[in-house]
Amino acid sequence: MLAKIADVMESVRAKTPLVHCITNYVTINDCANILLCFGASPAMCEAGAEVEEFVSFASALYINIGTFTKEQEDAVFPASLKAAKLNVPVVIDPVACGVISRRMQATKKLLDVAGITIIKGNTGEIKALAGYGARVRGVDSLEEGEDAVEACVNLAKKYNTVVAATGKTDIVTDGARTCLIYNGTPMLSQITGAGCMVGALAAAAAGSSADGWAAAAAGVAIMGLAGEMAARASGPYPGTFRVKLFDSLYTMTREDIMKGGRIECI
Amino acid sequence: MLAKIADVMESVRAKTPLVHCITNYVTINDCANILLCFGASPAMCEAGAEVEEFVSFASALYINIGTFTKEQEDAVFPASLKAAKLNVPVVIDPVACGVISRRMQATKKLLDVAGITIIKGNTGEIKALAGYGARVRGVDSLEEGEDAVEACVNLAKKYNTVVAATGKTDIVTDGARTCLIYNGTPMLSQITGAGCMVGALAAAAAGSSADGWAAAAAGVAIMGLAGEMAARASGPYPGTFRVKLFDSLYTMTREDIMKGGRIECI
Amino acid sequence: MLAKIADVMESVRAKTPLVHCITNYVTINDCANILLCFGASPAMCEAGAEVEEFVSFASALYINIGTFTKEQEDAVFPASLKAAKLNVPVVIDPVACGVISRRMQATKKLLDVAGITIIKGNTGEIKALAGYGARVRGVDSLEEGEDAVEACVNLAKKYNTVVAATGKTDIVTDGARTCLIYNGTPMLSQITGAGCMVGALAAAAAGSSADGWAAAAAGVAIMGLAGEMAARASGPYPGTFRVKLFDSLYTMTREDIMKGGRIECI
Repeated sequence: MLAKIADVMESVRAKTPLVHCITNYVTINDCANILLCFGASPAMCEAGAEVEEFVSFASALYINIGTFTKEQEDAVFPASLKAAKLNVPVVIDPVACGVISRRMQATKKLLDVAGITIIKGNTGEIKALAGYGARVRGVDSLEEGEDAVEACVNLAKKYNTVVAATGKTDIVTDGARTCLIYNGTPMLSQITGAGCMVGALAAAAAGSSADGWAAAAAGVAIMGLAGEMAARASGPYPGTFRVKLFDSLYTMTREDIMKGGRIECI
Repeated sequence: MLAKIADVMESVRAKTPLVHCITNYVTINDCANILLCFGASPAMCEAGAEVEEFVSFASALYINIGTFTKEQEDAVFPASLKAAKLNVPVVIDPVACGVISRRMQATKKLLDVAGITIIKGNTGEIKALAGYGARVRGVDSLEEGEDAVEACVNLAKKYNTVVAATGKTDIVTDGARTCLIYNGTPMLSQITGAGCMVGALAAAAAGSSADGWAAAAAGVAIMGLAGEMAARASGPYPGTFRVKLFDSLYTMTREDIMKGGRIECI
Repeated sequence: MLAKIADVMESVRAKTPLVHCITNYVTINDCANILLCFGASPAMCEAGAEVEEFVSFASALYINIGTFTKEQEDAVFPASLKAAKLNVPVVIDPVACGVISRRMQATKKLLDVAGITIIKGNTGEIKALAGYGARVRGVDSLEEGEDAVEACVNLAKKYNTVVAATGKTDIVTDGARTCLIYNGTPMLSQITGAGCMVGALAAAAAGSSADGWAAAAAGVAIMGLAGEMAARASGPYPGTFRVKLFDSLYTMTREDIMKGGRIECI
């Protein structure tokens, strides 16, 4: 599995996938910068009048509803439908879908009408989408829960998609194959945007590798590993940690993944 | 007073208040990150169709009109009315209200119809709101003025609210109690967002402490003190200063406040 | 020429031009911070109901269509028309105009109806605007091309404006005077926003110096030189590079420009 993750990273670096992002304004800059560090080419394009034209050039589409403006709402449906038509993989991050009705409705509608390649959320969001009870605080998940794997698998099967749930232990499944990822550091929750960046990385990975499950696992594991490297370099200082996070991801080697990746396929 | 400020900080760290922000896109990422450094949980949610539902979960609402989109305009009134109904404290930062008529009107309307807990602006904005002449340049205040304290006190009494005016000397008053805060560094004006972050911190503080005056003073003083610590660590380099600002706020101790706070109650 | 660039920098520091920005949400924070580092006063104001009032106070108007919302579309025309009326210089960055029809149309309309002082784009965007074939990938230009100078000169003449095209070699021309700028570092393309920040700097420069051609050259050369200084200080780490970029621009001296500038007038 670690070799597969490393292959995905090298594939991104070799192919420079163009990642079309419709994403929240809180971390839009972080998403662009982490994609560049990963070797991808980010492009934020979210006007309804632009997205169908633009997604035609894209290697992948990343939709994150963290600040879901009306204009973005008007854009995500035509963008994802066009992407599905062109076989452009689509990654969705249903931020706060567990606490905001409008976002739950929009996410479900997207899952129903468009072919979503990867759903990336925190465990609380994924459980809410899967119809399980979930404790959340605003945009943060407060739980893991023993039924988290079950919820992920059920959601993946229901929509024939890959599900990646981030938490203390991350879960990535396509319904048939499931892995648990133990990389990460508490410092990743001391900055905003770690989850958003995972989704962006997964989109870049899906834009250069055919296996959506491996792509999602790569996004999750590589961010976790970069976080560990950054935490070692920065100590408990979130400002410095954030700087080192970009540095670590940019300089990550195949060997870093082979030695530092902690993934269990179940 | 310093012990009170330190108590507020510890209360935020203990309670992790959820701060619902409707804020400008220039510094939205900074506000999220500084709230995390402070120990609060930020959530940016600004669609008209979402805010009433979301503010119900919130510990405080922060409204900053620095890039006041139509969608935000549609959101701030239902959000603040619902907040008032639920006794969720509301902090408003009336960015550039002194030079843009639409913003002055929106701010006054908010003050008239919703119960605002804290108005946080630079001295120029506060004086403009209070009906005093004020010299401004774009979003920056060019003055302090001998009538600044009087303007703050009058504004606080008029709207039965707390007023925090930032400048070379900061002023925080609830109409009855007034303090001057001397913490800060010129480096805070060499980066964007210091004022916005003060407002966000004040909202977090108001979300975990009942005394809005102490909460506002804590937001102002803690940012000023973090700025001083960051300036000592970085020297005159704004990029590095910005990184250290987050580090300093995250690692600030009760002792830092007791030793470094410079507040005069008048 | 280097002395002229240094003069422009000193003029910005002396005059603190107020730069009214209508710019994309990806790099809006970077643009504000780089303007502060340069000695200018940034103000992001983009509501249709605000821009005519606000541009009256401004020293320059910067329009960047990187995330071109409907609200921004409604704002750029009244803002630039009012600016033209008041002789406020206008700089436009036509991000992705070569691949998104709506942006090409909006850019051409702006060039037709408003008096644009400087067009700043990457070489691919400038060639597309000038009607030359151009290879692009999303928001990135893939080419220089032997006809790049010709394209710039023709575009400058057509619209009686200054054209600045960034690439491996940067080109700045007003149709009569043309210079090539060799400053820069590959690290500038490993972060998002370098191009946007060049446009913002050019706007600040145009807001304090009458010669638009020198202003554009100053924006381009100073960003390139700051990039070189930052790359020397950071090594190949984009997170650290980004921090040092702001530090380098803030501390740049006249001597840095005289010694490090690499400009050829042709």
